[in-house]
Amino acid sequence: MTADLAPARARERFRAGLSIPTSGWCAGYTQANLIAVPREYAWDVLLFSQRNPKPCPVLDVLEPGELGGAILDGDVRTDLPGYRVHRDGELVDRPSDAREYWRDDLVAFLIGCSFTFENALLGAGVPVRHIEQGRNVPMYRTTRRCRTAGRLSGPLVVSMRPVPADLVETAVSVTARYPQVHGAPVHIGDPAELGIADLDAPDYGDPVRPAEGDVPVFWACGVTPQAAVLESRLPLAITHEPGQMLITDARDTDYLL
Amino acid sequence: MTADLAPARARERFRAGLSIPTSGWCAGYTQANLIAVPREYAWDVLLFSQRNPKPCPVLDVLEPGELGGAILDGDVRTDLPGYRVHRDGELVDRPSDAREYWRDDLVAFLIGCSFTFENALLGAGVPVRHIEQGRNVPMYRTTRRCRTAGRLSGPLVVSMRPVPADLVETAVSVTARYPQVHGAPVHIGDPAELGIADLDAPDYGDPVRPAEGDVPVFWACGVTPQAAVLESRLPLAITHEPGQMLITDARDTDYLL
Repeated sequence: MTADLAPARARERFRAGLSIPTSGWCAGYTQANLIAVPREYAWDVLLFSQRNPKPCPVLDVLEPGELGGAILDGDVRTDLPGYRVHRDGELVDRPSDAREYWRDDLVAFLIGCSFTFENALLGAGVPVRHIEQGRNVPMYRTTRRCRTAGRLSGPLVVSMRPVPADLVETAVSVTARYPQVHGAPVHIGDPAELGIADLDAPDYGDPVRPAEGDVPVFWACGVTPQAAVLESRLPLAITHEPGQMLITDARDTDYLL
Repeated sequence: MTADLAPARARERFRAGLSIPTSGWCAGYTQANLIAVPREYAWDVLLFSQRNPKPCPVLDVLEPGELGGAILDGDVRTDLPGYRVHRDGELVDRPSDAREYWRDDLVAFLIGCSFTFENALLGAGVPVRHIEQGRNVPMYRTTRRCRTAGRLSGPLVVSMRPVPADLVETAVSVTARYPQVHGAPVHIGDPAELGIADLDAPDYGDPVRPAEGDVPVFWACGVTPQAAVLESRLPLAITHEPGQMLITDARDTDYLL
């Protein structure tokens, strides 16, 4: 079972070429978004994160030349299932290994991911539909704007989980206890209020089928800085493939309030 | 009563020259630590803060040329009661107005302050001895080390409040709800465990008299980056005088979880 794997074993598989969403993998271990940019843009990214802590909670920063760190006993260039390479506002490649594009002057940000609290949701009896359905979580660009930082601006990106109406309050209180991995939802109910026209057409990830009586619940998403580097046309940014996260050696409970 | 003043009125007095600790001023408004450094060291300070969020919760960053911002409708160079100017690891001046030393390339960090939750402590029935005694809060350099960031390293600095033994639990749970302004205590009880030899000889602020049955309770303190710029011998850093904070226009409740 992938849920029972140790992070190092999971990363071994990804390093060997497996590309797959990581929701449900390595239960109890923290998953992270990746965004790596040239050093000259690192200040803007760190400041953007500080100004938009809900979508961009920084778990760690790897400085130029560092490939692992306090929460990663591995290699950030190879240990994710999938990467995206962005140049001048275009998505130019989706490799399963980023070494071809990596440069010595890249600063890598590891940003909290809502997969971290899914295990706690399940433990509290809240079903997680996309795990049930073996799919990636659906993610959407919204019409809410992030606070700008230097060259970086962009929309808030959210992930969505359909939650049975009588468990929405539980989902809120469970996730509120994880402020470093997006915390409580940013919106509950009508997707139109976030400018989302069609839940079946996510901007990232897969559509997910709600069950009868489910309400859509939206959390801030660590794909937000990806949308910002695209919109802001940074010359180079290497990120994870949405839903295909870095599985770190940190424990979910490290981020439990 | 200074507790009832609006922040703009308090800042007016400080701008006019009043130098005084701000604990208890402008009840309900958030107070902040200041650290301003040349742009070339700003990355290290922001990364140091990210790596040491308990002592260094960043509330806002003013970029070069910005003298106010989202939480300050004023002038960061004049609106604090007192400043410290540090050069190459030495404290060189303690002016009540920093304009003489300010430079256009300075980046100013506004960092959360535990004065923010003192009003909540009082509201929960926890006495705050240094307010009762009309003194500055006592602060101590500890033997705990912060995580290093680039050129910046230093000790954890803590503030101490004596709390009646039967109210320690209340003090913990009240302050835990303010994670952006240092949150729950880092230590309760024996000061020797933090390497503090004598509570009556604080490194910053004033000694405070405990009442019978009080236990010393220690919170991470926003003076921590001051200790780091001194130890790390940055060429220039302008900070607040410990205990003489920037009173912002943000509400304490903005930082309540």
